Amino acid sequence: MAKNKTAITPTREQDYPEWYQQVVKAADLAENSPVRGCMVIKPWGYGIWENMQRDLDKMFKDTGHENAYFPLFIPKSFLEKEAEHVEGFAKECAVVTHHRLEPGPDGGLVPAGKLEEPLIVRPTSEMIIGSMFAKWVQSYRDLPLKINQWANVVRWELRTRLFLRTAEFLWQEGHTAHATKEEALEETRLMLDVYADFAENFMAMPVIKGEKTEGERFPGAEMTLSIEAMMQDRKALQAGTSHFLGQNFAKAQEISFQDSEGGESHAWTTSWGVSTRLVGALIMTHSDDDGLVLPPKLAPKHVVIIPVLKGDDTEQKVLDYCESLRSEIRELQYAGRPIECWIDKRDVRGKKWDHVKKGVPIRLEVGPRDIENDGVFMARRDQPKASGVSRSELLETLPDVLQQMQDGLFERALQMQKDNTKEFDNLDDFKKYFEGDKPSGFALCHFTDVPEMEEILKPLKVTPRCIPLADNDTPGKCIFTGADTNKRAIFAKAY
Amino acid sequence: MAKNKTAITPTREQDYPEWYQQVVKAADLAENSPVRGCMVIKPWGYGIWENMQRDLDKMFKDTGHENAYFPLFIPKSFLEKEAEHVEGFAKECAVVTHHRLEPGPDGGLVPAGKLEEPLIVRPTSEMIIGSMFAKWVQSYRDLPLKINQWANVVRWELRTRLFLRTAEFLWQEGHTAHATKEEALEETRLMLDVYADFAENFMAMPVIKGEKTEGERFPGAEMTLSIEAMMQDRKALQAGTSHFLGQNFAKAQEISFQDSEGGESHAWTTSWGVSTRLVGALIMTHSDDDGLVLPPKLAPKHVVIIPVLKGDDTEQKVLDYCESLRSEIRELQYAGRPIECWIDKRDVRGKKWDHVKKGVPIRLEVGPRDIENDGVFMARRDQPKASGVSRSELLETLPDVLQQMQDGLFERALQMQKDNTKEFDNLDDFKKYFEGDKPSGFALCHFTDVPEMEEILKPLKVTPRCIPLADNDTPGKCIFTGADTNKRAIFAKAY
Repeated sequence: MAKNKTAITPTREQDYPEWYQQVVKAADLAENSPVRGCMVIKPWGYGIWENMQRDLDKMFKDTGHENAYFPLFIPKSFLEKEAEHVEGFAKECAVVTHHRLEPGPDGGLVPAGKLEEPLIVRPTSEMIIGSMFAKWVQSYRDLPLKINQWANVVRWELRTRLFLRTAEFLWQEGHTAHATKEEALEETRLMLDVYADFAENFMAMPVIKGEKTEGERFPGAEMTLSIEAMMQDRKALQAGTSHFLGQNFAKAQEISFQDSEGGESHAWTTSWGVSTRLVGALIMTHSDDDGLVLPPKLAPKHVVIIPVLKGDDTEQKVLDYCESLRSEIRELQYAGRPIECWIDKRDVRGKKWDHVKKGVPIRLEVGPRDIENDGVFMARRDQPKASGVSRSELLETLPDVLQQMQDGLFERALQMQKDNTKEFDNLDDFKKYFEGDKPSGFALCHFTDVPEMEEILKPLKVTPRCIPLADNDTPGKCIFTGADTNKRAIFAKAY
Repeated sequence: MAKNKTAITPTREQDYPEWYQQVVKAADLAENSPVRGCMVIKPWGYGIWENMQRDLDKMFKDTGHENAYFPLFIPKSFLEKEAEHVEGFAKECAVVTHHRLEPGPDGGLVPAGKLEEPLIVRPTSEMIIGSMFAKWVQSYRDLPLKINQWANVVRWELRTRLFLRTAEFLWQEGHTAHATKEEALEETRLMLDVYADFAENFMAMPVIKGEKTEGERFPGAEMTLSIEAMMQDRKALQAGTSHFLGQNFAKAQEISFQDSEGGESHAWTTSWGVSTRLVGALIMTHSDDDGLVLPPKLAPKHVVIIPVLKGDDTEQKVLDYCESLRSEIRELQYAGRPIECWIDKRDVRGKKWDHVKKGVPIRLEVGPRDIENDGVFMARRDQPKASGVSRSELLETLPDVLQQMQDGLFERALQMQKDNTKEFDNLDDFKKYFEGDKPSGFALCHFTDVPEMEEILKPLKVTPRCIPLADNDTPGKCIFTGADTNKRAIFAKAY
């Protein structure tokens, strides 16, 4: 790679959407499949998702949730039970209508065995999980019910993009039922906190916790909370949502219970989810013009050792040195798990750039001269320059170095978010900020949640991202209507 | 529970299939859903599957496999590429034909947006994974390719039974491609060994490793290996399969590569899988007339502590004692992970039997008098009698006790298998063994794989389970045809 040339073409500056696709490709994370809208998640990309799953799963269990598994299919009549819900999902869903194939008139196979009732491939599982909750909940003693499911879901998206928007995606969906409104609200907020904690402390991605405006709520929810992150093109990405469903779903599905006084009440339910979209968010938050950059906590592997083989009698010595170094590194821990390290012995050109593009946090090169000095040549993915380091120093500092990288990525992203969040108190400036295709950022403005707002925002391709939960009670005037209000919202172009 | 009464009705002796359903229900493992043939896996059942996943996943990674994820849907034309394969799956598959719902003439929603080509919900993923392999493999340097996927699959079964046979089930499917036949055969055998190791050392379920006869092979495979286990009703259960696919799939899908001499060859592929069926096998291998019995290595939790509360001023003391005991137990390790322990403080009747039915390996009861003696009352799920034990002895021996239970379950199951495996050298005895509905067992006989055999077996409802790989080369005569052969097979009624 010549100096001043980047490993990824185009650069972020030149064409951000295309840069994203090229990073996904160069890091070998995923690719499109022959099935429209469905992606193949390749091992390096799936490794990131596995790490996300492991850490989130632990957080869910630590907050008292249990995993279970519910059917892939939802009978059409179930989906129809909650009016807003079906309205939200009917337009883009995969419908199973037959249960076998048989030879057709032209020799090929045709669908046969028509189902009495079509089945919908779950776009989300409120309606099937709720139907089971209705069976399981009889008395207040059966509550709360706190269930999580790791699953695939399908929403027939027309315009897809790897990880960010795909027809099939992987996710987790939490579903809980409670005896009181307060408890359900508390759960909704708790899980938003869990998501924010995960985003910031594992993904190194700063987020704003807030409430969605009415138009952006989950179909059927009374309140939707979300975490919103800023990507490097300054667009917003909704990274996780937690819904307070009130008694809407409980009433549609008859989830009711006998309370301690013997009366009959409907339960209060919540649902919350994050998906493989987080992998897209991770890529867009940290990566640079040389490819993927990974926060060490979620890197499938932390360290690659490259033996520099000269084709002479030093080769075995170098390989042995690498092996013993690998064993020692493997005994170190970072963030509660062993530091994953492998030796890349492949006889191919451009190995170094492979690892740069894949975002391996630490690259160690070991040649005969390094061994003489009992040292290695070390490159951090987050720093431009590599340098020699003694073996003992390396082993002593490696976990700290990884944590420095983790912290550094968060700080950089947080600075980016702060630098690109502007407050506006008049509509003209607000419009100018968002006009055209130039990068803008987050706009923080007083607002009232009225139809006029949506009409002004539409041509700007801007949406209200959320009403921040923190520090959001200062008097002002809605920039759309001039009405008095104490609330501000974040507005942005979004993924 | 009165003496001499069992917690499960009927008993195994009285009605084994119904006993199985009642154990699944009593242990709260799973239940039928409103979607025909699809089950809901409840937290205790899913916890067993999670443990299976964790241990298997480690074994797959330790043998050089990586996880990835492929689409849920397979275009119809892909399935049609391999003739035997489509023949095997077309009769029972879920077919997606539309991608939205819209209001119909009667007001309800009807399928709309007809797809140009129907999509099949994967019954297995050879055809979609192979299509990606064809893209990824160019040169011998790209081989071997060793991928595993954890996923849901759908086979439209008409007669379903929880865990054992369901329309949707969870599984893992390994798919590998190799440059040579020998390497692919080695992989096929290696993964069978991994499955056998897992079955015996984690599930405590003895298995026979063998090759399937032609009629029992995976559709499109050149060789199918399986592990076969004996359930307590002496029927066989196929617990895992590993397929050598030869070049059949590689040819149908154009998975070809340039070898080191520059020639073009088709790859040799394998696939292998185990599913949530293993949970059914686990239940049927160990459980008794009081409910589920779990090998400790796969128990979601190992120890339950029941405080004996007298409604007086000793309560807090008892609860404190339980808490401190729990912390100490939680610091112990068994089989490389912390011993999972919880305190059941619920104010309900029949708590003890709850835990018996759920198969919690160790139950500890703590009352005021136990505390005075610094001891607890301990019940092992595999022993009829409970007894007092001092706290120090408990903490010292707990990991060993769990391993004793694990070993004991395996030994008992192995004895059962040995006691119920008979050798036959004439057809009359063989027929008598299997006639009627009485329990039989495994029959080990010399055989030749010919159509006559299938015709004799059909009315007996017996199938050849496998041709054992070990110690299977002694001269004899086929009991079906009288022909000379060196091979024996296991025959049995099967799940």
